[in-house]
Amino acid sequence: MADRFAFEILARSGRARRGRLHLAHGDVETPAFMPVGTRGAIKALTIDAVEALGADIILANTYHLHVRPGDARIAALGGLHAFIGWSRPILTDSGGYQVFSLAARRRVSDAGVVFQSHLDGRPLELSPESAVDIQARIGADIAMMFDECVGWPATHDQAEAAMTRTLRWARRGRDRFLALQAGDEPSIVRSTPGQVQFGIVQGGTFPDLRDRSVDGTLAVGFDAYAIGGLSVGEPSDLMYEMVERVAGQLPDDRPRYVMGTGTPDDLVACVARGVDLFDCVLPTRNARNGQLFTREGPISIKNARYADDLTPPDPACGCATCRRHSRAYLRHLFMSGEMSAAALNTAHNLHFYLDTMRSIRKAIEFGTFESFANAFLETYSRHRSIS
Amino acid sequence: MADRFAFEILARSGRARRGRLHLAHGDVETPAFMPVGTRGAIKALTIDAVEALGADIILANTYHLHVRPGDARIAALGGLHAFIGWSRPILTDSGGYQVFSLAARRRVSDAGVVFQSHLDGRPLELSPESAVDIQARIGADIAMMFDECVGWPATHDQAEAAMTRTLRWARRGRDRFLALQAGDEPSIVRSTPGQVQFGIVQGGTFPDLRDRSVDGTLAVGFDAYAIGGLSVGEPSDLMYEMVERVAGQLPDDRPRYVMGTGTPDDLVACVARGVDLFDCVLPTRNARNGQLFTREGPISIKNARYADDLTPPDPACGCATCRRHSRAYLRHLFMSGEMSAAALNTAHNLHFYLDTMRSIRKAIEFGTFESFANAFLETYSRHRSIS
Repeated sequence: MADRFAFEILARSGRARRGRLHLAHGDVETPAFMPVGTRGAIKALTIDAVEALGADIILANTYHLHVRPGDARIAALGGLHAFIGWSRPILTDSGGYQVFSLAARRRVSDAGVVFQSHLDGRPLELSPESAVDIQARIGADIAMMFDECVGWPATHDQAEAAMTRTLRWARRGRDRFLALQAGDEPSIVRSTPGQVQFGIVQGGTFPDLRDRSVDGTLAVGFDAYAIGGLSVGEPSDLMYEMVERVAGQLPDDRPRYVMGTGTPDDLVACVARGVDLFDCVLPTRNARNGQLFTREGPISIKNARYADDLTPPDPACGCATCRRHSRAYLRHLFMSGEMSAAALNTAHNLHFYLDTMRSIRKAIEFGTFESFANAFLETYSRHRSIS
Repeated sequence: MADRFAFEILARSGRARRGRLHLAHGDVETPAFMPVGTRGAIKALTIDAVEALGADIILANTYHLHVRPGDARIAALGGLHAFIGWSRPILTDSGGYQVFSLAARRRVSDAGVVFQSHLDGRPLELSPESAVDIQARIGADIAMMFDECVGWPATHDQAEAAMTRTLRWARRGRDRFLALQAGDEPSIVRSTPGQVQFGIVQGGTFPDLRDRSVDGTLAVGFDAYAIGGLSVGEPSDLMYEMVERVAGQLPDDRPRYVMGTGTPDDLVACVARGVDLFDCVLPTRNARNGQLFTREGPISIKNARYADDLTPPDPACGCATCRRHSRAYLRHLFMSGEMSAAALNTAHNLHFYLDTMRSIRKAIEFGTFESFANAFLETYSRHRSIS
């Protein structure tokens, strides 16, 4: 598989790694943050704008694209890259998380999940196998295995049941993926032949379950591994503990991806624990709600104190929003309900995330990640360090 | 006034004029279309995007900015250009049209209009004098006199009453403007000292009233003149007749502006009658409703026939939307309620309008405007010519 998937580690600083991931549609410099483009679009931004921000890779949601416009349609139109006009790498989740959080009614069994579309109540189903087929049609560079995620808090029994089912699904999902690769399922369009598949470690916040999940997932064998089931409401210290425990058991030569995380300090803390890939709706969703990330912590642009404030959102920021616009104008746009408020805020927040990752990568290259991280957290949240 | 306001006519083709308007914040190539930025923002687009589209001048609405964030605040923040981050020319309307169309309750007298804010019911008033003061604070390059606009149809008596009141207001508005210029009202902040003021001809669809309005407005004497009270529901033939009649009586050496017009064929037809400036919400508003202008006429991107259509909205268009995206993707974004649908559609429609104006200017330079216009209308609407 080295011809279409490889991960190089270019530098290390403590447990933090500076890497480069080679994917079918190009390289991803890691540690990397993936902006979330649920329906094949980063909310409030055009694809041109996302490209201008310098994102190497974006995430799209299998559940949403399956419901609309449909994966068969996407395949017929040449795959997701062609459909949305984005030529760089894409990762798709498996659809599992959205089924559990969005679907109107659902029935989970070992076979898979039967649910009703959140749009029109139409009955749909996802299984370890169909999640592979759908993602093959969509044609992301990275497909995720179908898993079951429990919320927080969950009992040991609940977390164990979901984890063991996830392991059974891992085997089936991997088998299906390999069958498609081997050409055994010619009826399934594969929009990106070089697609790779990541496994997902579950187990909630229980160390013993996490350990068993790591062993079982590694035994199945994927191109790389993600840590799922975190950032679901648990305290961040508990999340970091799980990340540290699991990351330490995952292969050093493969990228590690913590799904759905997190705040800027979460990213720094997880990189310090050996994580390479992230995605999160925070920068985009919070932008639409008027929260802007800055080096000194987040601000709410709705606040009346900004009505006459001619400084940019973050005076230290070089993004297009900060170079051109003041807090006063952004507040006016937000209060007036102008769509451009969402566009400008989203561009700023994503720039902040992507720029933080650039700084992280530089710091690892220079072997100064720990001092960078402590300085970042000191300025950003003023109350904690990475350790 | 030549030091801060001049209009050069560079070429003619029939009655169509190719000109250049010198304003405090730069030059405007005419005939020109002004995108509408009601609240200091073109809906769905960032200022960066509007600049990239190549607009020389934008329009903002005095009524909306007076209500929020307030003209005193704008003046304190350095004027509208600084507030919104736009360095090129701006025109503000007088607020009259919006008072008549938006205000919750209003009482019109010769003194002016007392009305309630559409946002919070707060009592506000506009008069020929206060409209001048507000626009001085906002600091547009071009301020419009305060007028009263009647709808269509209106009786001769109604149109006459509004027209004669508009003439009385013209005198008072011009006096106030000249007093501010002379420094007689030092308490009023003038954010753009080089601001100029345009008069407005009213009179509905009655030739005799239009003629009297022209005479009276010219007698007051403004930097240039607009034709108001059109595009309010009357048939386009009647509008063209009024434009032709009025334009023919306005000074040749001053730009002529038809307010609130129109469709692409309206622009071509009015340029043929000697008009130089236009503004209209059609390209932006219709974009948000899924209508895309193309050289072969408008299309509705909602239509199911576009679900699998990989061609760009207008195959002959070179805008960023058409270069990157298909009708299928734009339909998906629109049907999904993605904000980027509005951004991409608006960018396309404004590009279409601005590009049509570029083609018009070229055709006048080459002395081939009439054949351009007939070819444009033949392709665009297939059913009428400019004559």
